[in-house]
Amino acid sequence: MPASEFSLIEQCFVSKARYQHKHTMITNGDDASVHNLPSNHELVVSTDTAVQGVHWPHDFPLEKAADRAVCAALSDLAAMGAEACWAWVSVVAESTEALQSMGQGVTDALNRYEVELSGGDTVHAPLNSLNITVAGILEKGTAMQRNKANIGDKVWFLGQAGLSALGLQQWLNGQKGGEFISHFSDVIPKIQQGRALRVLGVRCCIDVSDGIFQDANHIGKDSNILMELDVEKFPNWQSLSQELGAKKAMQVMLSGGEDYGLLFTAPAHTKGLNELATWVGVCLQGSGVKAQYKGEDVQLVKSGYDHFAV
Amino acid sequence: MPASEFSLIEQCFVSKARYQHKHTMITNGDDASVHNLPSNHELVVSTDTAVQGVHWPHDFPLEKAADRAVCAALSDLAAMGAEACWAWVSVVAESTEALQSMGQGVTDALNRYEVELSGGDTVHAPLNSLNITVAGILEKGTAMQRNKANIGDKVWFLGQAGLSALGLQQWLNGQKGGEFISHFSDVIPKIQQGRALRVLGVRCCIDVSDGIFQDANHIGKDSNILMELDVEKFPNWQSLSQELGAKKAMQVMLSGGEDYGLLFTAPAHTKGLNELATWVGVCLQGSGVKAQYKGEDVQLVKSGYDHFAV
Repeated sequence: MPASEFSLIEQCFVSKARYQHKHTMITNGDDASVHNLPSNHELVVSTDTAVQGVHWPHDFPLEKAADRAVCAALSDLAAMGAEACWAWVSVVAESTEALQSMGQGVTDALNRYEVELSGGDTVHAPLNSLNITVAGILEKGTAMQRNKANIGDKVWFLGQAGLSALGLQQWLNGQKGGEFISHFSDVIPKIQQGRALRVLGVRCCIDVSDGIFQDANHIGKDSNILMELDVEKFPNWQSLSQELGAKKAMQVMLSGGEDYGLLFTAPAHTKGLNELATWVGVCLQGSGVKAQYKGEDVQLVKSGYDHFAV
Repeated sequence: MPASEFSLIEQCFVSKARYQHKHTMITNGDDASVHNLPSNHELVVSTDTAVQGVHWPHDFPLEKAADRAVCAALSDLAAMGAEACWAWVSVVAESTEALQSMGQGVTDALNRYEVELSGGDTVHAPLNSLNITVAGILEKGTAMQRNKANIGDKVWFLGQAGLSALGLQQWLNGQKGGEFISHFSDVIPKIQQGRALRVLGVRCCIDVSDGIFQDANHIGKDSNILMELDVEKFPNWQSLSQELGAKKAMQVMLSGGEDYGLLFTAPAHTKGLNELATWVGVCLQGSGVKAQYKGEDVQLVKSGYDHFAV
């Protein structure tokens, strides 16, 4: 007998999701979920959509694609320094099998990060996609933002850059076992690290989803500073430039998206950052971003992904 | 010059959204939005996806489709009795024009109900769709749920039933100016009424999105009661049965979805409900739902919409 929508939701999602957050009053199965906040805390919310053929190739496993989508959404909470608590997941699936695969990926990722599945929606339509809304909490007034960089702040980077774009390129080239594939397929949201930075006093941070240059530019514009980055200081520059040559390495490192590292700024006197991240630049008077290599400005062909660009 | 994704988000969404909620600390434009809750209140969250060709016909105006999607999501907050505060909106659009139309519909609906656009996402892909996540607040412990009906409770209905399904049918038949079209195109979430019911002490409610029979069954199963509905008591039964004949009217009224009325139960002594809603049935020992017409059980051909049903 074919399964109904409601039994599929139960089978693919609800029965596989393992966590219920202690501040949840009503979850999954009513018209809405109900939660409270611990005292002196704020709510942090972000939403992200991932579509087959746009965010992942048509022949990429759906389970992995769904796992990535959850992790990419959680990365936005990491960028704010929040503790991840809840997720609401909507899945558009072209078949029952596609729904099952995406359900597995979604619940795998939520369980790995101990995040509750608080609600969701499923739709049968001819284009596989997921929308993930995530929420977390943090102590009042401590959220890391894009507009809090100041002139004289040091710029730091936590993670790797460009490797996911190389992995995607390998996949598209048919090198399905390529050395960079895992950097594309396994998104690791820096949730613990984001919280640690916030506790150390960092107040300006972004997660690098669209490429370092484009995301650094958000901080530069929103904070009204010029972020100057030194290409050679990035943690994976040495290996990347040896493998690809300086010119291509620069391009990939600065414009390749979806590595989900954290780019942040902090006053020079901030303690404890050396253990977590790499110093890659400085905030100057001006607006936006520039990158330097051996003392010269880097010219990029393309600065990051832009939906709706022609 | 073609507009970039970021300038389109600004143009189609951010610049048109008029409300900022007083409990919002950081909104739209950072990695996530940040909010606090008034003391003694809980957070209520729901998410809904609407896809072209599934939730609205391909030739239905996108602006109206987007407006409907927001209102359908808000209806879930109405069913809980919450005050609607915030929305996060993800739009998948096949063209810049489609994005603009959906942006207009989304912001029209949010502005009409004074709900803040707190964040979102846009994707360029070949199937128009929207995901709407909404959040509201209510006083601790007062949320209306599906599992709170008790034997002996009266069953009430607020709204109309079956008219949206008739409107959709008219649209599909080419009667674009038909008398029922507005019932499909203009979704009215019963937010004020939901709050009023909650304040009167109602604790069991659902919004009718999938058809009265299917949604009543959710209350019946979750509350472990048998909900007995009297077809002739429904507010628009007289006019509907005169127009369609009893058999078709019953079918449409009980299984036609998307009218977004509120179906709720309350102890017989509850005051003030007569002014807001119509008494349509009673909660008996048993589980699920049955409908009666002139003392006989009604047999339905189909009880509501089921994604993934074969």
